[in-house]
Amino acid sequence: MSEATARFERRVLVAVDEGEESMYALSWSLRNVIFQNSRDTLILLYVKPPHAVYSPLDSTGRIDDPETPGYLFSPDISAAIEKYSQEVADCVLEKAKKLCKDLQNVMVETRVESGDPRDVICDMSQKLGADLLIMGSHGYGVVKRAFLGSVSNYCSQNVKCPVLIVKKPKPSAGAGK
Amino acid sequence: MSEATARFERRVLVAVDEGEESMYALSWSLRNVIFQNSRDTLILLYVKPPHAVYSPLDSTGRIDDPETPGYLFSPDISAAIEKYSQEVADCVLEKAKKLCKDLQNVMVETRVESGDPRDVICDMSQKLGADLLIMGSHGYGVVKRAFLGSVSNYCSQNVKCPVLIVKKPKPSAGAGK
Repeated sequence: MSEATARFERRVLVAVDEGEESMYALSWSLRNVIFQNSRDTLILLYVKPPHAVYSPLDSTGRIDDPETPGYLFSPDISAAIEKYSQEVADCVLEKAKKLCKDLQNVMVETRVESGDPRDVICDMSQKLGADLLIMGSHGYGVVKRAFLGSVSNYCSQNVKCPVLIVKKPKPSAGAGK
Repeated sequence: MSEATARFERRVLVAVDEGEESMYALSWSLRNVIFQNSRDTLILLYVKPPHAVYSPLDSTGRIDDPETPGYLFSPDISAAIEKYSQEVADCVLEKAKKLCKDLQNVMVETRVESGDPRDVICDMSQKLGADLLIMGSHGYGVVKRAFLGSVSNYCSQNVKCPVLIVKKPKPSAGAGK
Protein backbone atom coordinates (compact mmCIF):
# COMPACT_ATOMS: atom_id res chain seq x y z
CA MET A 1 0.00 0.00 0.00
CA SER A 2 1.43 3.36 -0.95
CA GLU A 3 1.93 6.18 1.50
CA ALA A 4 -0.85 8.05 -0.25
CA THR A 5 -3.41 5.41 0.55
CA ALA A 6 -2.17 4.00 3.86
CA ARG A 7 -2.84 6.96 6.08
CA PHE A 8 -6.50 7.69 5.45
CA GLU A 9 -9.41 6.81 7.60
CA ARG A 10 -11.25 10.01 7.02
CA ARG A 11 -14.95 10.67 7.16
CA VAL A 12 -15.82 12.65 4.07
CA LEU A 13 -19.30 14.13 3.85
CA VAL A 14 -20.60 14.94 0.38
CA ALA A 15 -23.80 16.98 0.17
CA VAL A 16 -25.75 15.93 -2.91
CA ASP A 17 -28.94 17.32 -4.40
CA GLU A 18 -30.90 17.26 -7.64
CA GLY A 19 -28.51 19.65 -9.35
CA GLU A 20 -25.82 18.63 -11.81
CA GLU A 21 -23.29 20.65 -9.86
CA SER A 22 -23.38 18.39 -6.80
CA MET A 23 -22.90 15.28 -8.96
CA TYR A 24 -19.99 16.99 -10.67
CA ALA A 25 -18.57 17.84 -7.22
CA LEU A 26 -18.81 14.18 -6.24
CA SER A 27 -17.17 12.98 -9.46
CA TRP A 28 -14.37 15.52 -9.16
CA SER A 29 -13.74 14.50 -5.58
CA LEU A 30 -13.60 10.82 -6.48
CA ARG A 31 -10.81 11.64 -8.91
CA ASN A 32 -8.98 14.14 -6.73
CA VAL A 33 -9.58 13.54 -3.03
CA ILE A 34 -10.99 10.06 -2.37
CA PHE A 35 -8.83 7.11 -3.31
CA GLN A 36 -9.11 3.42 -3.76
CA ASN A 37 -8.09 1.46 -0.69
CA SER A 38 -7.93 4.62 1.34
CA ARG A 39 -10.16 3.35 4.15
CA ASP A 40 -12.07 6.60 3.95
CA THR A 41 -15.76 6.58 4.74
CA LEU A 42 -17.78 8.51 2.20
CA ILE A 43 -21.12 9.76 3.48
CA LEU A 44 -23.59 10.94 0.85
CA LEU A 45 -26.07 13.36 2.41
CA TYR A 46 -29.32 14.45 0.80
CA VAL A 47 -31.42 17.10 2.53
CA LYS A 48 -35.17 17.10 1.89
CA PRO A 49 -37.31 20.15 2.55
CA PRO A 50 -39.05 19.92 5.95
CA HIS A 51 -41.81 17.32 5.51
CA ALA A 52 -44.57 19.00 7.54
CA VAL A 53 -45.67 22.37 6.20
CA TYR A 54 -47.69 24.23 8.83
CA SER A 55 -49.84 27.28 8.50
CA PRO A 56 -50.54 29.86 11.19
CA LEU A 57 -54.22 29.39 10.33
CA ASP A 58 -56.17 26.76 12.23
CA SER A 59 -58.39 24.29 10.41
CA THR A 60 -61.21 26.80 10.18
CA GLY A 61 -58.96 29.39 8.67
CA ARG A 62 -58.99 31.55 11.80
CA ILE A 63 -55.85 32.78 13.44
CA ASP A 64 -57.38 33.31 16.88
CA ASP A 65 -56.31 29.96 18.32
CA PRO A 66 -52.52 29.65 18.38
CA GLU A 67 -52.78 26.27 20.14
CA THR A 68 -54.21 24.48 17.13
CA PRO A 69 -52.30 25.43 14.02
CA GLY A 70 -53.54 23.60 10.95
CA TYR A 71 -51.66 22.11 8.04
CA LEU A 72 -51.32 24.28 4.97
CA PHE A 73 -52.13 21.20 2.94
CA SER A 74 -54.55 18.39 3.66
CA PRO A 75 -53.04 15.17 5.07
CA ASP A 76 -53.47 13.48 1.67
CA ILE A 77 -51.55 16.18 -0.14
CA SER A 78 -48.89 16.29 2.58
CA ALA A 79 -48.46 12.53 2.25
CA ALA A 80 -48.15 12.83 -1.51
CA ILE A 81 -45.54 15.58 -1.17
CA GLU A 82 -43.63 13.51 1.37
CA LYS A 83 -43.74 10.46 -0.91
CA TYR A 84 -42.52 12.47 -3.88
CA SER A 85 -39.78 14.04 -1.75
CA GLN A 86 -38.60 10.60 -0.61
CA GLU A 87 -38.57 9.35 -4.20
CA VAL A 88 -36.43 12.30 -5.25
CA ALA A 89 -34.06 11.58 -2.33
CA ASP A 90 -33.80 7.90 -3.32
CA CYS A 91 -33.20 8.81 -6.93
CA VAL A 92 -30.45 11.34 -6.13
CA LEU A 93 -28.69 8.96 -3.74
CA GLU A 94 -28.94 6.10 -6.21
CA LYS A 95 -27.31 8.26 -8.87
CA ALA A 96 -24.60 9.31 -6.42
CA LYS A 97 -23.94 5.72 -5.33
CA LYS A 98 -23.54 4.68 -8.97
CA LEU A 99 -20.75 7.21 -9.32
CA CYS A 100 -19.02 5.55 -6.36
CA LYS A 101 -19.45 1.97 -7.56
CA ASP A 102 -15.81 1.50 -8.53
CA LEU A 103 -14.44 2.51 -5.15
CA GLN A 104 -12.67 -0.32 -3.38
CA ASN A 105 -12.19 -0.44 0.38
CA VAL A 106 -14.03 2.84 0.78
CA MET A 107 -17.19 2.60 2.86
CA VAL A 108 -20.09 4.44 1.21
CA GLU A 109 -22.99 5.44 3.47
CA THR A 110 -26.10 7.43 2.64
CA ARG A 111 -28.13 9.77 4.84
CA VAL A 112 -31.42 11.54 4.22
CA GLU A 113 -32.29 14.42 6.52
CA SER A 114 -34.97 17.11 6.46
CA GLY A 115 -34.73 20.84 6.97
CA ASP A 116 -32.98 23.89 5.65
CA PRO A 117 -29.96 22.47 3.82
CA ARG A 118 -27.69 25.17 5.25
CA ASP A 119 -28.38 24.23 8.83
CA VAL A 120 -28.66 20.50 8.23
CA ILE A 121 -25.35 20.26 6.36
CA CYS A 122 -23.55 22.22 9.09
CA ASP A 123 -25.15 20.17 11.87
CA MET A 124 -24.49 16.84 10.18
CA SER A 125 -20.86 17.72 9.49
CA GLN A 126 -20.38 18.04 13.20
CA LYS A 127 -22.61 15.16 14.31
CA LEU A 128 -21.04 12.73 11.86
CA GLY A 129 -17.52 13.84 12.74
CA ALA A 130 -16.71 14.84 9.16
CA ASP A 131 -13.04 15.50 8.42
CA LEU A 132 -14.00 17.15 5.14
CA LEU A 133 -17.22 18.50 3.63
CA ILE A 134 -17.58 18.50 -0.14
CA MET A 135 -20.36 20.25 -2.05
CA GLY A 136 -21.23 21.91 -5.32
CA SER A 137 -21.19 25.68 -5.36
CA HIS A 138 -24.96 25.99 -5.57
CA GLY A 139 -27.66 23.99 -3.89
CA TYR A 140 -30.75 26.13 -4.27
CA GLY A 141 -32.59 27.22 -7.37
CA VAL A 142 -31.82 30.63 -8.84
CA VAL A 143 -34.73 32.44 -7.17
CA LYS A 144 -34.31 30.90 -3.73
CA ARG A 145 -30.57 31.54 -3.89
CA ALA A 146 -31.23 35.22 -4.58
CA PHE A 147 -33.08 35.49 -1.27
CA LEU A 148 -31.17 33.06 0.92
CA GLY A 149 -27.68 33.21 -0.56
CA SER A 150 -25.99 30.04 -1.69
CA VAL A 151 -25.90 27.01 0.56
CA SER A 152 -22.20 26.52 -0.09
CA ASN A 153 -21.46 30.10 0.89
CA TYR A 154 -23.24 29.68 4.20
CA CYS A 155 -21.63 26.33 4.90
CA SER A 156 -18.12 27.49 4.04
CA GLN A 157 -18.49 30.17 6.69
CA ASN A 158 -20.15 28.06 9.37
CA VAL A 159 -18.89 24.49 9.11
CA LYS A 160 -15.99 23.73 11.41
CA CYS A 161 -14.18 21.20 9.22
CA PRO A 162 -12.42 21.94 5.91
CA VAL A 163 -14.87 22.61 3.06
CA LEU A 164 -14.25 21.84 -0.59
CA ILE A 165 -16.53 23.71 -2.98
CA VAL A 166 -16.51 22.40 -6.52
CA LYS A 167 -17.99 24.37 -9.38
CA LYS A 168 -19.00 22.79 -12.64
CA PRO A 169 -16.95 24.50 -15.31
CA LYS A 170 -18.78 26.36 -18.04
CA PRO A 171 -18.71 24.35 -21.30
CA SER A 172 -16.55 26.98 -22.99
CA ALA A 173 -13.93 26.74 -20.24
CA GLY A 174 -13.28 23.07 -20.98
CA ALA A 175 -13.99 20.12 -18.71
CA GLY A 176 -12.24 19.90 -15.34
CA LYS A 177 -9.40 17.47 -14.90
CA MET B 1 3.20 3.86 -8.88
CA SER B 2 -0.26 3.44 -7.42
CA GLU B 3 -3.43 4.51 -9.16
CA ALA B 4 -3.79 7.25 -6.58
CA THR B 5 -0.54 8.87 -7.59
CA ALA B 6 -0.30 8.06 -11.29
CA ARG B 7 -3.04 10.27 -12.62
CA PHE B 8 -2.17 13.67 -11.22
CA GLU B 9 -0.57 16.54 -12.98
CA ARG B 10 -2.62 19.18 -11.28
CA ARG B 11 -1.75 22.77 -10.63
CA VAL B 12 -2.67 23.48 -7.03
CA LEU B 13 -2.56 27.09 -5.88
CA VAL B 14 -2.17 27.66 -2.14
CA ALA B 15 -2.69 31.20 -0.89
CA VAL B 16 -0.45 31.81 2.11
CA ASP B 17 -0.16 34.78 4.42
CA GLU B 18 1.22 35.70 7.84
CA GLY B 19 -1.63 33.97 9.66
CA GLU B 20 -1.33 30.57 11.29
CA GLU B 21 -4.50 29.50 9.52
CA SER B 22 -2.95 29.56 6.05
CA MET B 23 0.02 27.46 7.23
CA TYR B 24 -2.41 25.03 8.81
CA ALA B 25 -4.32 24.92 5.50
CA LEU B 26 -1.10 24.09 3.68
CA SER B 27 -0.13 21.37 6.16
CA TRP B 28 -3.60 19.84 6.05
CA SER B 29 -3.53 19.81 2.27
CA LEU B 30 -0.13 18.15 2.18
CA ARG B 31 -1.59 15.30 4.23
CA ASN B 32 -4.94 15.12 2.48
CA VAL B 33 -4.78 16.38 -1.09
CA ILE B 34 -1.19 16.59 -2.38
CA PHE B 35 0.74 13.37 -2.64
CA GLN B 36 4.27 12.20 -3.09
CA ASN B 37 5.12 11.37 -6.68
CA SER B 38 1.85 12.84 -7.85
CA ARG B 39 3.43 15.12 -10.46
CA ASP B 40 1.30 17.94 -9.11
CA THR B 41 2.66 21.45 -9.23
CA LEU B 42 2.16 23.30 -5.97
CA ILE B 43 2.17 27.08 -6.31
CA LEU B 44 2.55 29.05 -3.09
CA LEU B 45 1.10 32.53 -3.55
CA TYR B 46 1.70 35.44 -1.20
CA VAL B 47 -0.14 38.71 -1.83
CA LYS B 48 1.49 41.91 -0.60
CA PRO B 49 -0.48 45.11 -0.11
CA PRO B 50 -0.13 47.43 -3.13
CA HIS B 51 3.42 48.79 -2.93
CA ALA B 52 2.82 52.37 -4.07
CA VAL B 53 0.48 54.33 -1.85
CA TYR B 54 -0.66 57.45 -3.66
CA SER B 55 -2.40 60.49 -2.34
CA PRO B 56 -4.76 62.73 -4.27
CA LEU B 57 -2.65 65.62 -2.95
CA ASP B 58 0.28 66.81 -5.04
CA SER B 59 3.67 67.35 -3.47
CA THR B 60 2.70 70.80 -2.29
CA GLY B 61 -0.41 69.48 -0.62
CA ARG B 62 -2.68 71.10 -3.20
CA ILE B 63 -5.30 69.13 -5.09
CA ASP B 64 -5.52 71.49 -8.07
CA ASP B 65 -3.08 69.58 -10.25
CA PRO B 66 -4.42 66.12 -11.06
CA GLU B 67 -1.45 65.45 -13.37
CA THR B 68 1.06 65.30 -10.57
CA PRO B 69 -0.26 63.22 -7.72
CA GLY B 70 2.18 62.92 -4.84
CA TYR B 71 2.99 59.98 -2.66
CA LEU B 72 1.19 59.79 0.66
CA PHE B 73 4.55 58.89 2.16
CA SER B 74 7.96 60.22 1.24
CA PRO B 75 10.01 58.05 -1.14
CA ASP B 76 12.22 56.96 1.79
CA ILE B 77 9.30 55.79 3.84
CA SER B 78 7.70 54.13 0.82
CA ALA B 79 10.95 52.30 0.12
CA ALA B 80 11.18 51.18 3.75
CA ILE B 81 7.57 49.93 3.66
CA GLU B 82 8.25 48.10 0.41
CA LYS B 83 11.42 46.53 1.83
CA TYR B 84 9.59 45.41 4.97
CA SER B 85 6.73 44.05 2.88
CA GLN B 86 9.15 42.04 0.74
CA GLU B 87 10.86 40.66 3.83
CA VAL B 88 7.52 39.53 5.21
CA ALA B 89 6.72 37.88 1.86
CA ASP B 90 10.10 36.09 1.83
CA CYS B 91 9.64 34.96 5.42
CA VAL B 92 6.12 33.59 4.82
CA LEU B 93 7.14 31.77 1.64
CA GLU B 94 10.25 30.34 3.31
CA LYS B 95 8.09 28.96 6.12
CA ALA B 96 5.64 27.53 3.58
CA LYS B 97 8.43 25.93 1.53
CA LYS B 98 9.81 24.27 4.65
CA LEU B 99 6.46 22.57 5.17
CA CYS B 100 6.77 21.18 1.63
CA LYS B 101 10.36 19.99 1.94
CA ASP B 102 9.49 16.30 2.11
CA LEU B 103 7.46 16.29 -1.08
CA GLN B 104 9.00 14.16 -3.80
CA ASN B 105 8.30 14.66 -7.46
CA VAL B 106 6.02 17.56 -6.71
CA MET B 107 7.14 20.86 -8.20
CA VAL B 108 6.92 23.70 -5.69
CA GLU B 109 6.81 27.23 -7.09
CA THR B 110 6.41 30.53 -5.28
CA ARG B 111 4.75 33.73 -6.43
CA VAL B 112 4.58 37.16 -4.84
CA GLU B 113 1.95 39.54 -6.16
CA SER B 114 0.62 42.89 -4.98
CA GLY B 115 -2.92 44.13 -4.55
CA ASP B 116 -6.15 43.31 -2.81
CA PRO B 117 -5.79 39.62 -1.93
CA ARG B 118 -9.37 38.91 -2.96
CA ASP B 119 -8.84 40.10 -6.53
CA VAL B 120 -5.28 38.87 -6.85
CA ILE B 121 -6.07 35.33 -5.68
CA CYS B 122 -9.03 35.11 -8.07
CA ASP B 123 -7.00 36.53 -10.98
CA MET B 124 -3.99 34.32 -10.33
CA SER B 125 -6.13 31.20 -10.05
CA GLN B 126 -7.25 31.83 -13.58
CA LYS B 127 -3.93 33.08 -15.00
CA LEU B 128 -1.96 30.18 -13.55
CA GLY B 129 -4.53 27.63 -14.71
CA ALA B 130 -5.13 26.36 -11.17
CA ASP B 131 -7.07 23.10 -10.91
CA LEU B 132 -7.63 23.72 -7.21
CA LEU B 133 -7.30 26.72 -4.90
CA ILE B 134 -6.51 26.07 -1.24
CA MET B 135 -6.64 28.70 1.48
CA GLY B 136 -7.24 29.25 5.17
CA SER B 137 -10.64 30.54 6.14
CA HIS B 138 -9.39 33.99 7.07
CA GLY B 139 -6.76 36.13 5.43
CA TYR B 140 -7.41 39.57 6.84
CA GLY B 141 -7.12 40.79 10.41
CA VAL B 142 -10.26 40.93 12.49
CA VAL B 143 -10.97 44.63 11.89
CA LYS B 144 -10.35 44.58 8.15
CA ARG B 145 -12.42 41.42 7.81
CA ALA B 146 -15.33 43.15 9.53
CA PHE B 147 -15.37 45.75 6.77
CA LEU B 148 -14.34 43.73 3.75
CA GLY B 149 -15.65 40.27 4.58
CA SER B 150 -13.27 37.34 4.57
CA VAL B 151 -10.95 36.74 1.65
CA SER B 152 -11.88 33.08 1.53
CA ASN B 153 -15.56 33.92 1.38
CA TYR B 154 -15.04 36.23 -1.58
CA CYS B 155 -12.78 33.77 -3.37
CA SER B 156 -15.08 30.81 -2.84
CA GLN B 157 -17.80 32.77 -4.62
CA ASN B 158 -15.70 34.19 -7.44
CA VAL B 159 -12.94 31.73 -8.30
CA LYS B 160 -13.81 29.43 -11.17
CA CYS B 161 -11.89 26.35 -10.04
CA PRO B 162 -12.69 24.18 -7.00
CA VAL B 163 -11.84 25.90 -3.70
CA LEU B 164 -10.77 24.13 -0.53
CA ILE B 165 -11.14 26.25 2.61
CA VAL B 166 -9.36 24.85 5.64
CA LYS B 167 -10.06 26.17 9.11
CA LYS B 168 -7.69 25.69 11.97
CA PRO B 169 -9.61 23.78 14.62
CA LYS B 170 -10.08 25.43 17.99
CA PRO B 171 -7.75 23.84 20.57
CA SER B 172 -10.71 22.38 22.47
CA ALA B 173 -11.98 20.65 19.33
CA GLY B 174 -8.80 18.56 19.04
CA ALA B 175 -6.17 18.70 16.33
CA GLY B 176 -7.16 17.90 12.74
CA LYS B 177 -6.21 14.59 11.23
